Amino acid sequence: MEKKSATLSEVMAARGELLNPDCPSREVLKRMTSRWTMLVMLALQDKTLRFSEIRRAVGGISERMLAQTLRYMEEDGLLARKAWDVVPPHVEYNLTPLGQQASIYVLALADWLESHFPLIEQRRREHNAPSRP
Amino acid sequence: MEKKSATLSEVMAARGELLNPDCPSREVLKRMTSRWTMLVMLALQDKTLRFSEIRRAVGGISERMLAQTLRYMEEDGLLARKAWDVVPPHVEYNLTPLGQQASIYVLALADWLESHFPLIEQRRREHNAPSRP
Repeated sequence: MEKKSATLSEVMAARGELLNPDCPSREVLKRMTSRWTMLVMLALQDKTLRFSEIRRAVGGISERMLAQTLRYMEEDGLLARKAWDVVPPHVEYNLTPLGQQASIYVLALADWLESHFPLIEQRRREHNAPSRP
Repeated sequence: MEKKSATLSEVMAARGELLNPDCPSREVLKRMTSRWTMLVMLALQDKTLRFSEIRRAVGGISERMLAQTLRYMEEDGLLARKAWDVVPPHVEYNLTPLGQQASIYVLALADWLESHFPLIEQRRREHNAPSRP
């Protein structure tokens, strides 16, 4: 049996069930779709960046929140961290192949959202207009 | 000028910038990628459901959280709410065309996540294994 398809069918057989509250994939959904994770993925698309560079790219994120986001992403196998043995320390981050795969979906959603955002804002204004009860 | 493309270029010109902390699209990102919004979209895919049916479909959501999620989704134009004038009250929910568009991206991400979840779990176990510092 060809190795790749065997792995794929194993993975398919063992897939998570997001609608099941007891399935631990819920936790991964929560982490991966956190606003900050999605914005870090946007910033790291096709790039290797240092902590301070990511922080500048993702406007508004605190140092502590960025550190936690990067730690979770690394734990989940989405992010690779490379520390160069120099003084002062030099640490670089980039998406792993798994993270790059995930980022395709995250970026597609982000792109849809950015382009449809004016329409969503308009809907919200209409919805909250005084003519409504 | 053809109306549809004019609207499209207006929308394109006015797109949000998620990496800009002052852009209000951030708030929409936060709402739309909340775990609960994504799970409600999963549950409502091609379906019209009542409150109690959505609640059963999305395991683990509290009544209060579901009510808030539905309210936000309706405000953002993603969800249509139809109240039938009967006793007892009968209210149905389904995705609007805008919500259906968004759900394509949300569902693609959810599908990727469900199918790659075992791999992500494995990465996390390896990462947290005692051999690591």
